[in-house]
Order: sequence, then structure tokens, then C-alpha cells
Amino acid sequence: MNLTGKMLIGGQAVAGRRNMIRALDPSTDQPLEPGYAGADREQVEQACALAWEAFDAYRETAPEARARLLETIAEEIEALGDALIERAMAETGLPRARLQGERGRTCGQLRLFARTLRAGEWLDARVDPAMPQRQPLPRADLRQRQVALGPVAVFGASNFPLAFSVAGGDTASALAAGCPVIVKAHSAHPGASELAGRAIARAVEKCRLPAGVFALLFGEGREAGQALVADPRVKAVGFTGSRGGGLALCRLAQSRPEPIPVFAEMSSTNPVFLLPAALRARGEALAQGFVGSLTLGAGQFCTNPGLIVALQGPALDGFIAAAAAVLSRSPAQTMLTPGIFRAYQAGVDALSGHARLAAAGLPATGTNQCQAQLWLAEARDYLAKPALRAEVFGAAALIVACRDAAELGQLAEQLEGQLTATLQLDDGDLDLAHALLPTLERKAGRILVNGWPTGVEVCEAMVHGGPYPATSDARATSVGTAAIRRFLRPVCYQDFPDALLPPALRQANPLALRRLLDGRREG
Amino acid sequence: MNLTGKMLIGGQAVAGRRNMIRALDPSTDQPLEPGYAGADREQVEQACALAWEAFDAYRETAPEARARLLETIAEEIEALGDALIERAMAETGLPRARLQGERGRTCGQLRLFARTLRAGEWLDARVDPAMPQRQPLPRADLRQRQVALGPVAVFGASNFPLAFSVAGGDTASALAAGCPVIVKAHSAHPGASELAGRAIARAVEKCRLPAGVFALLFGEGREAGQALVADPRVKAVGFTGSRGGGLALCRLAQSRPEPIPVFAEMSSTNPVFLLPAALRARGEALAQGFVGSLTLGAGQFCTNPGLIVALQGPALDGFIAAAAAVLSRSPAQTMLTPGIFRAYQAGVDALSGHARLAAAGLPATGTNQCQAQLWLAEARDYLAKPALRAEVFGAAALIVACRDAAELGQLAEQLEGQLTATLQLDDGDLDLAHALLPTLERKAGRILVNGWPTGVEVCEAMVHGGPYPATSDARATSVGTAAIRRFLRPVCYQDFPDALLPPALRQANPLALRRLLDGRREG
Repeated sequence: MNLTGKMLIGGQAVAGRRNMIRALDPSTDQPLEPGYAGADREQVEQACALAWEAFDAYRETAPEARARLLETIAEEIEALGDALIERAMAETGLPRARLQGERGRTCGQLRLFARTLRAGEWLDARVDPAMPQRQPLPRADLRQRQVALGPVAVFGASNFPLAFSVAGGDTASALAAGCPVIVKAHSAHPGASELAGRAIARAVEKCRLPAGVFALLFGEGREAGQALVADPRVKAVGFTGSRGGGLALCRLAQSRPEPIPVFAEMSSTNPVFLLPAALRARGEALAQGFVGSLTLGAGQFCTNPGLIVALQGPALDGFIAAAAAVLSRSPAQTMLTPGIFRAYQAGVDALSGHARLAAAGLPATGTNQCQAQLWLAEARDYLAKPALRAEVFGAAALIVACRDAAELGQLAEQLEGQLTATLQLDDGDLDLAHALLPTLERKAGRILVNGWPTGVEVCEAMVHGGPYPATSDARATSVGTAAIRRFLRPVCYQDFPDALLPPALRQANPLALRRLLDGRREG
Repeated sequence: MNLTGKMLIGGQAVAGRRNMIRALDPSTDQPLEPGYAGADREQVEQACALAWEAFDAYRETAPEARARLLETIAEEIEALGDALIERAMAETGLPRARLQGERGRTCGQLRLFARTLRAGEWLDARVDPAMPQRQPLPRADLRQRQVALGPVAVFGASNFPLAFSVAGGDTASALAAGCPVIVKAHSAHPGASELAGRAIARAVEKCRLPAGVFALLFGEGREAGQALVADPRVKAVGFTGSRGGGLALCRLAQSRPEPIPVFAEMSSTNPVFLLPAALRARGEALAQGFVGSLTLGAGQFCTNPGLIVALQGPALDGFIAAAAAVLSRSPAQTMLTPGIFRAYQAGVDALSGHARLAAAGLPATGTNQCQAQLWLAEARDYLAKPALRAEVFGAAALIVACRDAAELGQLAEQLEGQLTATLQLDDGDLDLAHALLPTLERKAGRILVNGWPTGVEVCEAMVHGGPYPATSDARATSVGTAAIRRFLRPVCYQDFPDALLPPALRQANPLALRRLLDGRREG
């Protein structure tokens, strides 16, 4: 499967006209062929124009047709076989098993949205029949459904080259909603992006949908991405990445003549609270679980547990000693990119002025390798020093010791918005857990008990989101079936003749939806 | 029922400490007692602190408890009797019957949200049970519900002193969601605001809820409102008013250290397309219906039909003549405030340089009276001149003549986002309506056939919203039961012991919800 180094616009492979990027193998710092020339403004505009032309037809395709598109994309990705895995391994330094699992997750996600489309609840169809005899005024016939927002710009993430990238959750949910998608590929894995993009383009063609439904752009720096977000035909943005990058997109989207929503998943330290009874009863097991979650994938997960909070004392000391013992045997792991490695080094350097190093993993034996680190601080320092609260992307965590439960509660209350918060608890901790829960509900999109936050299930109930600055919109999730809602808006149809109504709202209910009929659920 | 001139903070009547405002009777320009001194920063902060203190307890009250609060508010408003109507009449110049109807709408809205709370679908409860045997990895138990965002700042609108004001739709939906509400009263009707605010405070007390659940603030200018939106404890804003005011709040909310959503309903010209067959068959009846909708309440509705679009020719000429005849007999009506009257005059003056006056209503016989006006322009001028596209708040409309259906379609495509779009059509117009519909779906929150856009039903299927600049968030509606969603966000609970779960997600399903259980709807 030869890589072409080309973008995809209107279903065609198109060479970019701007500076070329090449992936680097992070384990060797060697560039990987081919080069990918970036989109110029005209090419960004062309992709947007084609998406716009495709939009009205695509959004009104039957849900079944879009379900088949998503399933066909999954099949085409599977048909790429080992070529996709091997290219992604070379570009990211991630191991084969992890990428195979991520491919399964990516395809499962596409199929889950196909199921969601067929179930039809996303349409939120509502019918309030006319009441011509009502006094003092009659009621009109009023019907509501959800319609797609418009073309969506998706920015691939570095750390999930498949599941949060070209064919990832943002693309799957936007295509499900009826939105054409224009992906700005992450420059760290252009080859995997090309392969996934070609799978999508083939699926669009097989399903006989307009080619403008999907485009894949490359580009060095921010030029192409900014042109994309500024284009008036783009109506929403999906982004997973750094806080700086996400906030820049938010500002750009807000400064457009027509502002648009940006769903940016940005940063999180994912606090884990080791409650006293659990810590006393099973500190060693907790330490093992913690280090496993911390070092998984070199800590390069949005939900990596970067903050441990517990009461000071012998039980915490024991936990720290046990964690240090496990961590000291953890091999260094290649990080995704040299830039991420440098940022990790800078992040732990910034901690060093304010916290004590409790343990480190095995030293690096190759380029761009993350040596895991465990740092210690007191709660009063954590509360006073912003440097201790910053996310360090990678396998570094800070353990914060609190003098008492009140200080622990105060720390929880001072947290920024998070993707996750975790409680390690035993029966004796339930009162404290009850007391903490309201705070954690205000701080996080997902709260775990006796688990570790890495591992984000793709399902109906998942929330991968949370209050600012974890994301730019706490009302949204970027994982799970509710992610489709980000790209929909309601439209009300008043006194429409049946023939002019969309199928979801017609009297005969041809989509067999369980509609909200005069306030009661049908069926 | 004596007015006190006081604000409400923590259930107590509190005198403001800043400049005093007084309502003006717009029919006489005479000030109405009492004066209302504005909130200073400390008072704004106090209201926010109390709302924050009340928040965790209030958001976890049973849905039934909040339903009773909303019903009790409705009862307390009804118990105000004629005093509320008479004060609102004096402050707004609106007639008794209109305000009685608006009171009915306000109370009906509160009761509708009570029904919504009891039905429970707003919780969007989802349960994905654990799959401990799943390969390659087990699935955790994952449950999702919606939780309240936090204290909400509500800005009352001038044109609905009851239904979009202190006890209006924003307050009702935010209280239903579990959010404490701090209202910044509109300075045009402080007396009606005080009465409605006292009704809410009494209901909060009767229902034994924390007094911080509701506060009512007054303030001259923007100082108090800006302090409110900037307060870190406020987590969302509801606003109905001018584009300038709405955008200023959006900028302020975006520039906070923690940005928050602003749901601003701002402006709309509400285009009405008179399709050819309908125009030929019933131009005179259309003209009557149009002028009735245009002049209703001196045109001071967000959904006032300010733009008529049709093909040029004898049928349109006949419509214009008929509309002019009806309009010329329409009496001038007192506008809500001297400021709104001045803005109306400025608005029609701005039209006069670019359009021709086709007809005017009867001249004013008193102060601040709106003389209805009908203006004409050609489509090419409308497309070229931004001055013709601005909303004129009041009983002025612009009729735009198109050379052919293509130009009419082009005009539709050039429209800004709207609250409503209307098609007047007969059977012979269905093809043209089909062709226009995709454009109108992209432009408006509500599309009407053979009706007039004034009159916004409060029901399940209503959308009072639309693409920017009609509102700041096309995904929201400010009227109808879906308005509750603006103030909610999802939280996921992973592997929680049953006792720690909120009732909506417990195994025994004590709220008797139809939950989404493993992708299938219960019950």
C-alpha cells in the first residue's frame, strides 16, 4: 500500500502547494517518507466549497444511508490491514497491540454511531398537534427535529492516531449527524492519516454520496487550520489537543463574523483521591494500579492520572514507597513526538522547583523516551503555586499530601475543570465520598470509584468532557453516542403540509421513531 | 400591594446603594414611583455567594420538589391579581388584555416545566452495565445523567415584562434544571419585576428551599449586569434583547478566566415569502394577516414580520395596495420606552435613504407612539445595502420585490440567521417551497407555512432560537421545554456503589425513569 503524500479533496488525491511535512520516527528521529505538502488557502477554500455543496443533500440522506457509510468506513479501515498498524507504529512509537486495540475501538465507534443513527433518538422528534378549538387562541401544529449544523472542521490528536484522528470520534459523530467533515491531519502521523482518509473517501464513493462529504488536508504550522476555522462555510470545530491550541481555535471561532462552536478537549490532571480506609487497607495494590495507569502508553492519555490526593501519614508513606518501588522498575518509553518529549522535560523541570522527586522510572535508553516521575508536595503548596497545578503530558504525577479531610476538600474545591476525578474508597470512606461528591460533580465530566481513569469506554453513558479548561464546552462529550449532539440544532416546523415535512416528522412516521407526541412518548 | 423599591437578596428586601432608576409611563413620559436604587458590586457578590451556597443542595432536590416550586411560583403570580397587570400596563404602555394573556403564558410556562421535570426525560439517564467477562477487556459499569450548570444570570427583556422577564422562560427553565437564578431586572419595568420577584421569593420560602435560589437585582446602565456576568460563581447567562447588548455579554463571558455560555436571543427580521400562487389567489387576505401581525403590540415582538419577499408583478402590487389600505387605518400605538421609540424613529429614518415609503399608519396622537410604516425596495438593492437588512424594532416592514424565483432564492441564501422564516404558499407553490426549504432550515429556528410568526407557542416542539445573529447559540431554544437543556451538562459515574449514585441512576430506578439501558429504552 503505497503512500502518495497527497491530500483528499472532492474524493481526489491532490498534492498540497505549501511547505512539506514529514513524520518522524520518534524512536530514531529519522524522517519517514513520503513528504506531505500542505494546503494553501485556495485548497482549503475548495474543500470548504465542496463540503458546502454536499451539505444539504448529505444531511437529508436517510439515517440508514449514513449508518451504512459509517459501517463501510469501518470495513475499509479493517481492509487496510497491517499497513495501517505498521505505519502508525513507525509514526508514533506506540506498540502494535495498542494500535490494534485502537483500530478496534475506532471501528467499534463507527459501528456504534451506525446503531445510534438507526435507533433515531438523536432526531429528538417532537409533535404537538394543532388544537384548533383551544381558547382563547388555537394552537398551531408544531413539530421539531434536529438538523445538522453544517460542515465540521476536525483536528486530529497526536496521541490517538486512529481513534481521535482522521476517522476518530469527532469525524464519526459529525458524519452521523449529517455534517460533511474536513480533517486537518495532525502533522505527527500523516501516513496513518492518509490511509484512514483514503478508507473514508472509498467508503463515501462506495455509498454513492457526494465526494464533498469528506476532505483531508495537511499543513505545517497553523495556517491551514486557521483558514479552515475562519471559513464561513465551516459551522463547528472538533479538536483534541493542548490548551494553547484549543484556546487559539476558540478565539478564532469567536472572532468570525458568524461565531461558531468549538468543541475542544484540552487538558486535565485527572485527580485521584485515595480515601483513608482504602489507603490503609490496600495501599500496595493501589500503588500498583496507579503506576500501571500512570505509565500506560508513556502517560500520553488525556485521562492520565497526574494528581494523587490523600491524607498525610503512614498509610500514604507506604503507598508512596510501594509506588516508588514499582515505578523504579518501569522502563522508559518512546514518546509520540520530539516536541511532546521536550514539553514533558520542561514540565517536570517546572515541577522541580516546587515539589520533591519521590521516584523515577528506569532511565531512557533511546531518543525521545519518557522517564516516569513521581513528585511530592503538600496541599498548602499545591493551593498556593500554579506551577504545581499544570498538566504535564506524559508519565509524571504529583502526590499531594493533605493535613486533614478539610484540607482535602478545600483542594478538591480549588481544582480546575477536569475530564475525570477518581475516588479510591472502602466502606469506611463512604461519608467522606458523599461529602466530596458534589464538588467532584462540579469539577469533572466522569467520576470513577475504585478504578483508574485511563481507558475511555465508547458507549452510551460515557462522558469524555468536563468543565473548562478540560474542555471548551462542559455541555458536550467527545466520546460516546451523546457526542452526536454537538453537531445538531433544533428546527421547528409550524403548520407544514405533510408532503413538505421531513420524514422524521410526517404523520405516518415512516422512520418508526418514538416521538414525543403532545408531551407523551410514542410506542 | 405597595411597592418597596427594593431588591431581593437571600429572600430579603434590600435597598440598593447605587443610582436610582424609575420606570417611565411611556404614554406620558412621567416617572413612576418608587425609585429603585441599583446593586453595588458588594450586593452583586452577595447574591452570587448565596446562589453558590444554595447550588449543591438545590440541584439535588427531587424533581418533584422543583416541580412544586414552579407551580407555587405560578400560584403566587396569580395571587398578585390586578396589581401586577396594572403596574405592568403603566410601565409598558401595553394593554390589559395583552398583559393578562402574557400572565397566563408565564404561569402556563412554569407549569409546563413542572410537567417536564416529572416526566424526567431531561435527565437523559443512561446505564451501561458492567461486562466483567468481555474480551479483550472487561467493561466497567457506566451511568450518565444531566446535572445543573450552576447559578444562572437572567436579563429581563423589555418587551415581555412577564413572560421573558423575572419569572419568564429563562428563569423557569434554569430553576427547573436545578440552577439558582439571579435576575438583573430590565430598567423599563422595575415595579412589575419587584412584584414577580416577590412572588418567586415567597414560593421559595413556602417550598422551604434555600433563599439563595433566587435573587433580584436592579441597576442603572450596565454596571450591575456586567459584574454579575463576570462573577466566577455564575455559570451561564440568559438574555433577550438587542444585538449590541447580547454581543457585549457574549464578549464579557468569553473573556472570563472561565468562559461561560451565553444564551442571547438578539435580533431577527423574520422574513415572510409570499409564493406566487398564494399571492395571486389571496393577496388581499395575506395583506390583512400581514398588517395584523406587523402592528400587533406596536410591532415589538422578536418575531415581528419585518421583511416580506415576493416576485414583482401585479399580484405583488395588489398585495401592497391592500396592505397600504389596511395600514393607513392602523392607529399609532405607545411603544415600551422612550428609548425604543427613538430607536424606531432612527431605524425608519435609516430606511428612508434606500427604500420607498409605501404606506404609513395613522399618525401619533400621544408621546412615544409608533406610526406603522411599510417600505419598498428591489431585491438587488436589498442584497447590496446592509442598511436595508437591519432589524427595525417596531411596526415597520420592508417589502422586497424579486425579478424571478432565482433572485428570491438568492435573497434567501443571503439572509442572516433568523428566529423564524415563513412561507405563504398554495398547492402550486410546493415545488418552489421544496426548493427554498433547505435554505430556510439553515437560516431559521422555526419555519411556518401559511401563518404569521408572531405568537410563540410554549410547548414541547417550539424552537425560539436560530443561527447567529438571531441568537448566540443555534443549538438552543429559549422557549419550550427543550430550553431546560441550556442549563445542564452530562456527568458519567463509573463503577459507583449504588448508595453513592444519584437516585436517577440507582439500580432500583426510584424515579421510575425510562432509562437508556445498554442502548435500549427501558419501559
